Amino acid sequence: MAEINALSGEQSGQNRLVYSSTWIQAQQQLIAWGQQLGLRVTVDRYGTVYLDLVGREFPGQIIATGSHMDTVRQGGDYDGLYGVIGGLEAIANLAKRFGQPKKTLRLIAFSEEEGSRFPATFTGSKHYARLPVTETINDDQGLSFAVARAQAVAQLVKDGVVFELPQLPETFTELHIEQGPRLFDQKIDIGLVESIVGQKRYTVVVKGQANHAGTTPMVDRADALQTAVMLIHYLQEQRRRFSEQLTLTVGAFAVLPNTANVIPGRVQFTVDCRSSDAIELTSYGRLVENLAQVETNPRISIEISQWTETAVTELDSMLLTEHQKLADKLGFSWCKLASGAGHDSQIMAQVARTTMIFVPSVGGISHAPAEYTPTADLERGLALLTASLYEQAYGGVTTNK
Amino acid sequence: MAEINALSGEQSGQNRLVYSSTWIQAQQQLIAWGQQLGLRVTVDRYGTVYLDLVGREFPGQIIATGSHMDTVRQGGDYDGLYGVIGGLEAIANLAKRFGQPKKTLRLIAFSEEEGSRFPATFTGSKHYARLPVTETINDDQGLSFAVARAQAVAQLVKDGVVFELPQLPETFTELHIEQGPRLFDQKIDIGLVESIVGQKRYTVVVKGQANHAGTTPMVDRADALQTAVMLIHYLQEQRRRFSEQLTLTVGAFAVLPNTANVIPGRVQFTVDCRSSDAIELTSYGRLVENLAQVETNPRISIEISQWTETAVTELDSMLLTEHQKLADKLGFSWCKLASGAGHDSQIMAQVARTTMIFVPSVGGISHAPAEYTPTADLERGLALLTASLYEQAYGGVTTNK
Repeated sequence: MAEINALSGEQSGQNRLVYSSTWIQAQQQLIAWGQQLGLRVTVDRYGTVYLDLVGREFPGQIIATGSHMDTVRQGGDYDGLYGVIGGLEAIANLAKRFGQPKKTLRLIAFSEEEGSRFPATFTGSKHYARLPVTETINDDQGLSFAVARAQAVAQLVKDGVVFELPQLPETFTELHIEQGPRLFDQKIDIGLVESIVGQKRYTVVVKGQANHAGTTPMVDRADALQTAVMLIHYLQEQRRRFSEQLTLTVGAFAVLPNTANVIPGRVQFTVDCRSSDAIELTSYGRLVENLAQVETNPRISIEISQWTETAVTELDSMLLTEHQKLADKLGFSWCKLASGAGHDSQIMAQVARTTMIFVPSVGGISHAPAEYTPTADLERGLALLTASLYEQAYGGVTTNK
Repeated sequence: MAEINALSGEQSGQNRLVYSSTWIQAQQQLIAWGQQLGLRVTVDRYGTVYLDLVGREFPGQIIATGSHMDTVRQGGDYDGLYGVIGGLEAIANLAKRFGQPKKTLRLIAFSEEEGSRFPATFTGSKHYARLPVTETINDDQGLSFAVARAQAVAQLVKDGVVFELPQLPETFTELHIEQGPRLFDQKIDIGLVESIVGQKRYTVVVKGQANHAGTTPMVDRADALQTAVMLIHYLQEQRRRFSEQLTLTVGAFAVLPNTANVIPGRVQFTVDCRSSDAIELTSYGRLVENLAQVETNPRISIEISQWTETAVTELDSMLLTEHQKLADKLGFSWCKLASGAGHDSQIMAQVARTTMIFVPSVGGISHAPAEYTPTADLERGLALLTASLYEQAYGGVTTNK
């Protein structure tokens, strides 16, 4: 990982935005490593890199692992990259110890997952999973996704690289840092991901009337901020009626005119709610959608619009059970958990049996330069992934059920 | 007023920021009018213009009226200017009808009241009242108050203009639009101002920990926005325990990092509270100052700093009683009220018997291009001011008590 992370140079944190020069160098480095290891290298037109250790008996049955190569702005050293480099190490180790597998082992470095450059997420795994991707989008410099993509991918396709969209795998196992504090706080080695939370995101606009803070009597006010506060307080109170795993975040909040001595005429805020329980999420979402009925001041208007809707993704329970057994054999402590963040696995789960292995994040810090996982934890995750890929590709029965 | 307002040209609303070119032209125009009327013209080193109709018997006893010449950015046609032009018209009418008064009549056009260019308010009336003014301040272009002042005032001091800080008056009567909706809503002609509200303004900073909106369990969060909402909700609830005339405004609210899917790590908001009841204001102010005791999450820190403290100003009750009688004689409906906005009168009240006459503001709109008062209302205010100045300067007994 150090080689890839060194590509970001003197910048603060990792900055491998999709199709940027550091991203191109990282994918080129990965291709070079794949070729040195004698793996079959494929690149698709989105720039996702596939490194195959081709199977002896069932080359068309593919056991895949991997994660994404891109990062957020000023991201950490582990998010995404750990799953890519960990997957490559696992396959290299297996090749060295056991030679050619029965089924094909595939390392995947998805082009993009974070949505940090273009207003779209999971474009790499969506393209691989044959799901629609909107390409008519621009980055904040006005450069189109299609142009940036074509220019970057042209630099990956060289001699010895197959340029195609390869076949889908039977299974996908993603190794990742937790990005939250649960494993770290409870001193647990491994998190086995049962599901990825569903998400709903909304924008709420409260319109009142800007006015003089001194001369407008309280009863005559249409104070958008006071109403916004009342609505968020209501959402807080209602959230307590749900389980602790339903999260509520009001992350963005903008006021007009935003001056100490003027009553706010307009407030806009976001509501992000997530849960691994689909019923709970639907129920809480309805509360947000009906916020306009909470306010009774006729001078205030409230508009709610939803802009994200991601269903709860259940990951594969058989692969998880297999990972429990392997973790026990390896002497690792483990727990089941739901992922509060989105991952490529939620896309892959739509087309293949999919599972995730989490390792602890110190302090739960992620998407920041301070993101950190000790080497011992990284190695435990790698050991479990290696054992799982061995079972799946070298003759274990797991994937034949 | 139309001539002065035309100086702002094609801009939206009035923009006579102190010492700007439109402000200089306006004061020059006022000086020219004073000279045409044969008034004695004085300018002080802050650029306040004084036009005196010198008294016959008691020239050293000064009956003053006026208001400020500056405006907020994109202000209205009436705030300040109505009191300046109305005062000039009243004096011109009295001079024409009754000739020289017993006492000196003085029209004052204060240089600055709004605090819209430099971070200081009431600098014109404070300078006249011999109160300290901080001059080591800059506008948002980095130009210092002292330099801007000297350059502008140099353009007012010409032949026939006395350059000095003149003597303080016995009384000051300020004619002004209400800037609130009470007179308009209740269809009352005249507001007689008993007091000007006291103000306290605070900045509250809530510091938590920015974190991932999906992976951070609710119990592990140090969400600065949720705490800020709780504190403002608490302030709302507490405000209900006070009288309706205690106002609470949270006008400015800033969030970091202000992203939908990141838990806010820092929120800063302002609290503006006002009351004409000094005890009530002190009591509510203490609630704000003790906000840090409301929160119990040890991961959240709260800092409160106060940056404005204006005491309640009681205006002169004898002048108010005189105005009641005059309004009755003129057949105008009137009520007593407290001013929710600050005015030059709160400064002048510290050095002279001071009173204010309000006329209705349509819809209570002020500090905006839509600020409006019908001519009939403007003329009623002018008639009452004229009657009052006649009583005070031409032999009424009011000011001799």
